[in-house]
Amino acid sequence: MIQPRTLKGFRDHLPAQALARERVLDIARRVYRSYGFAPIDTPALEYLEVLTGKGSDETDKQLYRFTDHGGREVGMRFDLTVPFARFAAQHVNELGLPFKRYHMATVWRGENTQRGRYREFMQCDFDTIGTTSGVADLEMVLVVHDLLAAIGIERFSIRVNDRRVLAGVLERLGLADRATGVLRSLDKLAKAGAEAVAAELAGQGVAAEAVAALLEMARLAGPPAEVLAGLATLVGDSATGRAGVAGLEEIVAGAAAVGVPANRLVIDPSIARGLDYYTGIVLESFLDDLPSLGSICSGGRYDNLAGLYTKQPLPGVGASLGIDRLLAGLEELGQGTTVETPAELFLAYFEADRLPDYLRIAAALRRAGLAVEFFPEPKKLGQQLKLAAKRGFRGALIIGGEEFATGTAQLKNLATHASTTIDWHGDVGVLVDAVCSCRAGLDAV
Amino acid sequence: MIQPRTLKGFRDHLPAQALARERVLDIARRVYRSYGFAPIDTPALEYLEVLTGKGSDETDKQLYRFTDHGGREVGMRFDLTVPFARFAAQHVNELGLPFKRYHMATVWRGENTQRGRYREFMQCDFDTIGTTSGVADLEMVLVVHDLLAAIGIERFSIRVNDRRVLAGVLERLGLADRATGVLRSLDKLAKAGAEAVAAELAGQGVAAEAVAALLEMARLAGPPAEVLAGLATLVGDSATGRAGVAGLEEIVAGAAAVGVPANRLVIDPSIARGLDYYTGIVLESFLDDLPSLGSICSGGRYDNLAGLYTKQPLPGVGASLGIDRLLAGLEELGQGTTVETPAELFLAYFEADRLPDYLRIAAALRRAGLAVEFFPEPKKLGQQLKLAAKRGFRGALIIGGEEFATGTAQLKNLATHASTTIDWHGDVGVLVDAVCSCRAGLDAV
Repeated sequence: MIQPRTLKGFRDHLPAQALARERVLDIARRVYRSYGFAPIDTPALEYLEVLTGKGSDETDKQLYRFTDHGGREVGMRFDLTVPFARFAAQHVNELGLPFKRYHMATVWRGENTQRGRYREFMQCDFDTIGTTSGVADLEMVLVVHDLLAAIGIERFSIRVNDRRVLAGVLERLGLADRATGVLRSLDKLAKAGAEAVAAELAGQGVAAEAVAALLEMARLAGPPAEVLAGLATLVGDSATGRAGVAGLEEIVAGAAAVGVPANRLVIDPSIARGLDYYTGIVLESFLDDLPSLGSICSGGRYDNLAGLYTKQPLPGVGASLGIDRLLAGLEELGQGTTVETPAELFLAYFEADRLPDYLRIAAALRRAGLAVEFFPEPKKLGQQLKLAAKRGFRGALIIGGEEFATGTAQLKNLATHASTTIDWHGDVGVLVDAVCSCRAGLDAV
Repeated sequence: MIQPRTLKGFRDHLPAQALARERVLDIARRVYRSYGFAPIDTPALEYLEVLTGKGSDETDKQLYRFTDHGGREVGMRFDLTVPFARFAAQHVNELGLPFKRYHMATVWRGENTQRGRYREFMQCDFDTIGTTSGVADLEMVLVVHDLLAAIGIERFSIRVNDRRVLAGVLERLGLADRATGVLRSLDKLAKAGAEAVAAELAGQGVAAEAVAALLEMARLAGPPAEVLAGLATLVGDSATGRAGVAGLEEIVAGAAAVGVPANRLVIDPSIARGLDYYTGIVLESFLDDLPSLGSICSGGRYDNLAGLYTKQPLPGVGASLGIDRLLAGLEELGQGTTVETPAELFLAYFEADRLPDYLRIAAALRRAGLAVEFFPEPKKLGQQLKLAAKRGFRGALIIGGEEFATGTAQLKNLATHASTTIDWHGDVGVLVDAVCSCRAGLDAV
């Protein structure tokens, strides 16, 4: 006998988890589509040379790689950005530009599981490539907003900055050539604190005055207009810096125009994002009630997506929803769900010779748009209802011999145990109408 | 520069293909859920011992396998049944029985691509385990029916048989101990023809009379009642055979009770399904207009799902939609689609200083449930509309300086080039109502 077990760092999704994930994926799909992003998919396996050297040394090390049947060196994708770069270079002529895609798929990283990370997880990316327009930047912000709102999160903040603002400030401080190191240090501010970052910057040879200016910048907070005014002062006459501030002003104005609540959009000069390839707007987003979770949706603008695969420059902007992190956060906030069934109604079975009637009733309810589970065996009613309650069904429809004889039915709320009698006079249409009219309020039956 | 390419046997899904696949996945999800099947997911990678020796020698050979970072021998799943067996054994106590799950996910097989097969494809399985009830068998047939109908296929046949009928006939012919070989031969009937199968059976030492009886059985055709009568004669007093015939009678009666059109359900004694583990009902389904495509949805009942992982017997019944084969078939029948966008409406952009107005209009249309792509740059209108038409947008909303000044808009049908003028008097609500009222008929604008 073989022991049934999953690999370390991998996990099964049981119905409650799988349903929660499908709900968010469905919402993401709907929101991405509502802006015209189109789905694509790429293989889980790529030529190793497509994947290596694209992320960091760490992602190279974490790569699942092997030699396939044909002697090819292959790897499993570790993110959706590198495959998208390869995809865009390969198909750009067919696709046309600008091109907007979403991609929701599994990725694999042989991470150290002691950090509570999984080796298999989903990413939900969306990107617009082939345009440098600020409208695409704004759209990224709006999509993230609509997405988090549609998921049902009330209190969240989208924190936005622009790499050009950072570059402008560094230029003014004479640190333009040390941008990478300085940004990596600033990026640690939230986790490591100001003192540690100041020490790290000093260690890089940044003068005390410049360190103070950088921390002042990172500490700017308040209403967007105030923060933007502070940044305008700090970038001075740096053209790059001013372009960055102007870009952020457009974001604030555009978000206000479409009614994004002001408290959900924050200009946060401390957001740098560690990755080198961002060149314009950068974005992170947080649950206000659980900021320690970290960013649940992050992204930004990059100058060139696919420079390793094509000479055609493909500027773009996009973000990625960390769906597994978000679901963990919702669970921690008590907003998770333990419902194990996608169906609203449980139809009990206990008169074997009435099988055709049960089948007709179930079929009619389904045709009316109600998901119905019919228990497959005429077992004891208590046993059936116990399983239905465990699975989180909201309501159970009970029709036994007596009910069939009198043309009635019991609609039972499995949480409150309250029952409603339906008189359907043996007319399935009447029964369906009665059940459907209770649908929205099955909880309150 | 690295050449952007996919591995042999792997492919990218561009938007038109990805949209077609998402449409079918979405329908499958909805139909499976409507019967109470709940989603699950399992890892792409499993311990090698979980995967090997479960399918056939061929699947063992085709397995993508390697040694992971921790020195574990691992493999990529080649179907969803073996991982489900492992999953069920591992979690059965949490899940409760009967348990109904669906699983739609990617699998990998290092197949010979010369047969036009891909090495990466999706499966969409659903199964009910923990019950031997014929209601679960019937439900499988109904789900397959509802699924194919919901996909929009008009002409299809679900061909059903029962392994017990075959066993009964073999028992009567004194061939019970050679069942596997005989069934494998019979399974080739459609492809190889009666003569080849007769020769193969004779080669196995089956007497001429028995060969004739087997071929007579396989050739039984016509209305279910007639075929069932013929089978009843052939099985005689074999208890197993009679149970099989009774099971098929229940399927026919149940399907009729819920209104499955009679021409879509065929009792086909030639259906054996090569796999050894089926023990009761077996099912295949075909597009009537493209039978050469082969079965697009197949399944059956098995005595024990997870005998290799647990001592608890887990009988079950289920089927799998071959989504990639189905999509290829629909395309071959001219029922594919070349639409590359999920959005219904294209909003052109050509008055840069009206950006906030465009944004407000797009947001209001989205709030009304319309998916809208807003072009990110105020380029020449002709260029924007050309891209929109290429992508398959049904309609474009055009509001230039003059339209803003007069409170009008042009709603253009991109297929017919016909235009409708909307008077919205600068009131976005009026514009949204007008566009939405054209929604269903955007094609006919």
